[in-house]
Amino acid sequence: MLKAAILGATGMVGQRFIEQLQNHPDFAIEVLSASERSAGGRYGESVEWTLEKEIPAAIKEMQIASTSVEGVEAAGKVDVIFSALPAAVAANVEPEFAKVFPVFTNASAFRQEPDVPILIPEINADHVRIIKAQREKRGWKGFIVTNPNCTTVGLALSLKPIMDGFGISSVRMVSMQAVSGAGFRGQDAVSAMQITDNVIPFIKMEEAKVEFETRKILGAVQNSRFRPAPFDIETSCNRVPVLDGHTECVFVETKRKVDPGEAEEAMAGFKGQPQQLHLPSAPKRPIWVFKGDTRPQPRYDRMLEGGMAIAVGRVRAGSSNRSLRYVSVVHNTIRGSAGGSVLNAELMKAGGYL
Amino acid sequence: MLKAAILGATGMVGQRFIEQLQNHPDFAIEVLSASERSAGGRYGESVEWTLEKEIPAAIKEMQIASTSVEGVEAAGKVDVIFSALPAAVAANVEPEFAKVFPVFTNASAFRQEPDVPILIPEINADHVRIIKAQREKRGWKGFIVTNPNCTTVGLALSLKPIMDGFGISSVRMVSMQAVSGAGFRGQDAVSAMQITDNVIPFIKMEEAKVEFETRKILGAVQNSRFRPAPFDIETSCNRVPVLDGHTECVFVETKRKVDPGEAEEAMAGFKGQPQQLHLPSAPKRPIWVFKGDTRPQPRYDRMLEGGMAIAVGRVRAGSSNRSLRYVSVVHNTIRGSAGGSVLNAELMKAGGYL
Amino acid sequence: MLKAAILGATGMVGQRFIEQLQNHPDFAIEVLSASERSAGGRYGESVEWTLEKEIPAAIKEMQIASTSVEGVEAAGKVDVIFSALPAAVAANVEPEFAKVFPVFTNASAFRQEPDVPILIPEINADHVRIIKAQREKRGWKGFIVTNPNCTTVGLALSLKPIMDGFGISSVRMVSMQAVSGAGFRGQDAVSAMQITDNVIPFIKMEEAKVEFETRKILGAVQNSRFRPAPFDIETSCNRVPVLDGHTECVFVETKRKVDPGEAEEAMAGFKGQPQQLHLPSAPKRPIWVFKGDTRPQPRYDRMLEGGMAIAVGRVRAGSSNRSLRYVSVVHNTIRGSAGGSVLNAELMKAGGYL
Amino acid sequence: MLKAAILGATGMVGQRFIEQLQNHPDFAIEVLSASERSAGGRYGESVEWTLEKEIPAAIKEMQIASTSVEGVEAAGKVDVIFSALPAAVAANVEPEFAKVFPVFTNASAFRQEPDVPILIPEINADHVRIIKAQREKRGWKGFIVTNPNCTTVGLALSLKPIMDGFGISSVRMVSMQAVSGAGFRGQDAVSAMQITDNVIPFIKMEEAKVEFETRKILGAVQNSRFRPAPFDIETSCNRVPVLDGHTECVFVETKRKVDPGEAEEAMAGFKGQPQQLHLPSAPKRPIWVFKGDTRPQPRYDRMLEGGMAIAVGRVRAGSSNRSLRYVSVVHNTIRGSAGGSVLNAELMKAGGYL
Repeated sequence: MLKAAILGATGMVGQRFIEQLQNHPDFAIEVLSASERSAGGRYGESVEWTLEKEIPAAIKEMQIASTSVEGVEAAGKVDVIFSALPAAVAANVEPEFAKVFPVFTNASAFRQEPDVPILIPEINADHVRIIKAQREKRGWKGFIVTNPNCTTVGLALSLKPIMDGFGISSVRMVSMQAVSGAGFRGQDAVSAMQITDNVIPFIKMEEAKVEFETRKILGAVQNSRFRPAPFDIETSCNRVPVLDGHTECVFVETKRKVDPGEAEEAMAGFKGQPQQLHLPSAPKRPIWVFKGDTRPQPRYDRMLEGGMAIAVGRVRAGSSNRSLRYVSVVHNTIRGSAGGSVLNAELMKAGGYL
Repeated sequence: MLKAAILGATGMVGQRFIEQLQNHPDFAIEVLSASERSAGGRYGESVEWTLEKEIPAAIKEMQIASTSVEGVEAAGKVDVIFSALPAAVAANVEPEFAKVFPVFTNASAFRQEPDVPILIPEINADHVRIIKAQREKRGWKGFIVTNPNCTTVGLALSLKPIMDGFGISSVRMVSMQAVSGAGFRGQDAVSAMQITDNVIPFIKMEEAKVEFETRKILGAVQNSRFRPAPFDIETSCNRVPVLDGHTECVFVETKRKVDPGEAEEAMAGFKGQPQQLHLPSAPKRPIWVFKGDTRPQPRYDRMLEGGMAIAVGRVRAGSSNRSLRYVSVVHNTIRGSAGGSVLNAELMKAGGYL
Repeated sequence: MLKAAILGATGMVGQRFIEQLQNHPDFAIEVLSASERSAGGRYGESVEWTLEKEIPAAIKEMQIASTSVEGVEAAGKVDVIFSALPAAVAANVEPEFAKVFPVFTNASAFRQEPDVPILIPEINADHVRIIKAQREKRGWKGFIVTNPNCTTVGLALSLKPIMDGFGISSVRMVSMQAVSGAGFRGQDAVSAMQITDNVIPFIKMEEAKVEFETRKILGAVQNSRFRPAPFDIETSCNRVPVLDGHTECVFVETKRKVDPGEAEEAMAGFKGQPQQLHLPSAPKRPIWVFKGDTRPQPRYDRMLEGGMAIAVGRVRAGSSNRSLRYVSVVHNTIRGSAGGSVLNAELMKAGGYL
Repeated sequence: MLKAAILGATGMVGQRFIEQLQNHPDFAIEVLSASERSAGGRYGESVEWTLEKEIPAAIKEMQIASTSVEGVEAAGKVDVIFSALPAAVAANVEPEFAKVFPVFTNASAFRQEPDVPILIPEINADHVRIIKAQREKRGWKGFIVTNPNCTTVGLALSLKPIMDGFGISSVRMVSMQAVSGAGFRGQDAVSAMQITDNVIPFIKMEEAKVEFETRKILGAVQNSRFRPAPFDIETSCNRVPVLDGHTECVFVETKRKVDPGEAEEAMAGFKGQPQQLHLPSAPKRPIWVFKGDTRPQPRYDRMLEGGMAIAVGRVRAGSSNRSLRYVSVVHNTIRGSAGGSVLNAELMKAGGYL
């Protein structure tokens, strides 16, 4: 049983980490950190708990550590770090932790680094090889492994079997993203005044992230360097009045002829290392394919396999026999955030990195 | 002053026709028709009025005629027909009216006919030429002119200046459509249980309509036949929790190099016959172009120029110098429905057809 | 194991009956009935399933019976009837079933009858005594037991410990009701156009039902007659943009002095026969009392104990020491409908009526 | 023409002040102030404009003054102050302004002071008499006049004709309040995560404010002291997913017999000094009474007479012939905030105080 610290444990992603690690066979929560303002207090008194299930009783009583190596070490002996920090904080703090600890982070701060993998274990489990280069270059005993932006997950996972089966020459994607992605409340959150009876056709930095990350994840590692997947990608990201679950409309041009039925089969049958290794958080079927016209819908499909599977539907031909259209839904704060990080840790534990 | 009948006057589009024709300089409402169930009653007692402004007092007192040539003629002498009928009813009834009357319809029943124009006066005012062939072929004294599907309007209007300036080789469009498009309530309406905290990734027949209509409208009439614009088009249509205003994310590949700034300029400066002829319902600027990232938004921009202008924003480059991305918003039941039909009638009155 | 038929099994309450009876220790679903339109078809093809959990596989394959004694008997041998019929249908059909079967109905058709109990087992388990009179008067072998209107449940349950402890002289209640109460979609459902960015301050018949039912349930049975609880009651019922869960703001004037802390204690400690008998669907605590100001909230609290407990909070003094104010939340289609009926059947099985 | 400064001009109420004062016959906007952070910048660059109509061009270019007497005086010569400041700021700043200027404030800071009137000109125009005492006691050349909490307005206005006609012995009120009352976005605003598919049954300090203010406004001024109206009042205030417009369900016990029809007549015919004096912002009918069951609804009725009239409906008997029930809707940021303050200023100008 490995002991885990959760950095940024009071935010929405931090709460999802707690949820995902409850009763986990491999990881036990040992330390919860938060900003200086909360440090020292009881978790139950400092958090604005936003999940429908109550706070676990033991978690409620834990004392919050400050978000630093010293703070965490003073609070307990830990083996692994899960980070739900905001990007700006992560940029400074995560490297300090990585000197000593394996860090699985949901933050975007290091995703663009040439020696840091963005991991979706069903797709690019082999990218963990880059860790060797990362440690050498930076002199770390630990490492940083990131999971992608929540929107990237629903896109990259659904593209993987298409790329494998038919090749991809271009991708166009429009997202309709849930408000939980921006936080529960406060300065960055989406307010009811902003989004009620409305669509906001812009999310800061989101399109650049999704376009970069998707190609990096679906690309290769050669000679300790990332080779992004060589397809065109254009996205347009929107906020809509939905609580959880990002819906994405995807247009793909394939290199070879593709029949929608074949594509559905490829997606429905898709499995990766998490399924082969029976990792604890792995969904049995990473991609659930719906027939019929009306699914997926975020309210109905975001919680498939505990929020760890994505839903795909409306797989249909585009304007040529080398084009496809479909819709996907991913739970943005489970598979797209905390659950994804936990799955990454499980993969690396299975690979002997922890 | 021409006397107008509104067919299907109790529905949401019918109500918008009443709103658009209030105090109109050229058309006066003479007859309101509805289904047999309502015929004979006072309009004010039969309608479930859904607009924010109250029913005009005179309209409230009008007796509802039945939806047939006889019914309408018994109720008053009219010169022109505006139809807000459901497609299935329109298919049977509109040809009967067209034997005698000019019919401006919002219904989809005849849009695919090879001798019926789908008119957006800023784009294809010249398509009215087909009326001659329509009358000859069908032996009608009147005619049928359709306006497009509400979603088509926001797409075709914004594509027109791009096509003129840079050529178009392909279009991908994802819509986020308002619930008013499906009616106020009842069997076809979108229920709160369906759409609250949700996205529905499918609208029956919508994608096929938008793809067909856009190319027909942006195409040419040659030798009394339509030549659709020869670009690829793929769409994906969604229902979102918005009352009015369809938001569309568009990816365009152009034939020639295009700079986003040039495209913005072309759209902002775009004018057509309605502007040149100063038609009463014509917006001064058919396309309002927003700089900055956060607009257009349906709640803020659907009512530009009384709902007759569309809003465009986020005009930006795609992945090559021959690609563009942008977002548009159109008021689906004003410019996209009743207001569009009224503008069509104004154009044809100016052209001597009425 | 008793075999159950669900009448009106395709609607939202019918679906909740299926959900509540899955893996039930005492009742097994044997027959599903629906309207003539659906009868004969497979359940999975006829239903528009609206719950988040998938349709149970075995249920999906069941053939739908027509909603009549003959139809149900032809489909299987059953011991007990659960009815999710609309009131107008129930009025005709339920008495036919009651000739032979115990009928547990969610319909309002017979709630006002002087020999039919409205049962909330924690409150008025003794009202089942009226069944004897019901059978004698009507010559039935079976019987009809109703559960109250969904809004009544949240009010009556929370009033019971107050009445017992302090006496009640008057009640004022304002409800903010979820849209699921009106059905999933169609003519009676609440449409998105009606309720988005809105409140509808009226629900047909609701106030009269709640006022009558609350006093009947909290009243006594004496000499085979109901004696309604003798307090004043006035309500005002609203529809708000919430999916599930009715929120109620209650003002109570008590006969004796009452301290909010005492009232909280009385509610939190309240138990009835379902708890004493450990009935399978009984919540451990029928009333969860929240301290602090911000709860209960329907999105967070509607699913307490599987939707079978109600939540109460903001218990505070009114303008005198004989007045109280509080807020309650009840899941309208679980405790307020199907779950309530199932609990009624469990109580009567324990009492030897089944 | 009097020159006006708006304090706190960038917030939502500040924006409504700008809207209400556009093209006003008596007041011209001369100075806009905001917090130090914005002071010195152009208004158009500092404001996050949230109203549907665009910012007036001249306003856009105005330079923002800092929120102090010196700051305002340096920016222009003004005759009257409209304050949209937060209560905590208002507590310090408004007395400084009142030394010299008439201050019409929307802030709650001074509403409970024994020499400061809370004005609703249709109800208590005579309360301005207290100004004399206020000036004497405080040594001010100017004065402070407050308008009530937004929720108070919908309650007090509708109670006034009932009190005059039938006497009032007790009031129970439950509000369903719009999110705009909490601001557009940021720390205090209601987030989409908080309110989507939800009701929040608590608004900080709201109930105490409404209960105190309603009795003060409906009370008398005798010997320079306020005598609150001597009825019981209990309220329960909720936040619901509505953009603008507070809906209130009211139960009133009257001193004398009351028939709902008489009450409707009293409310519909109610007029006060603003109507008699034809003040520019005065609604022709302060209370619009709807017959029928389904109104008022906030989305339809909040903008009656430009948002300055309230809507009342469902006037019906309670459980005795001395009780009434009804529902009211008030636009919380127009009549309930900025519009109310402007009307107060118009009244006092007519009375020779400006």
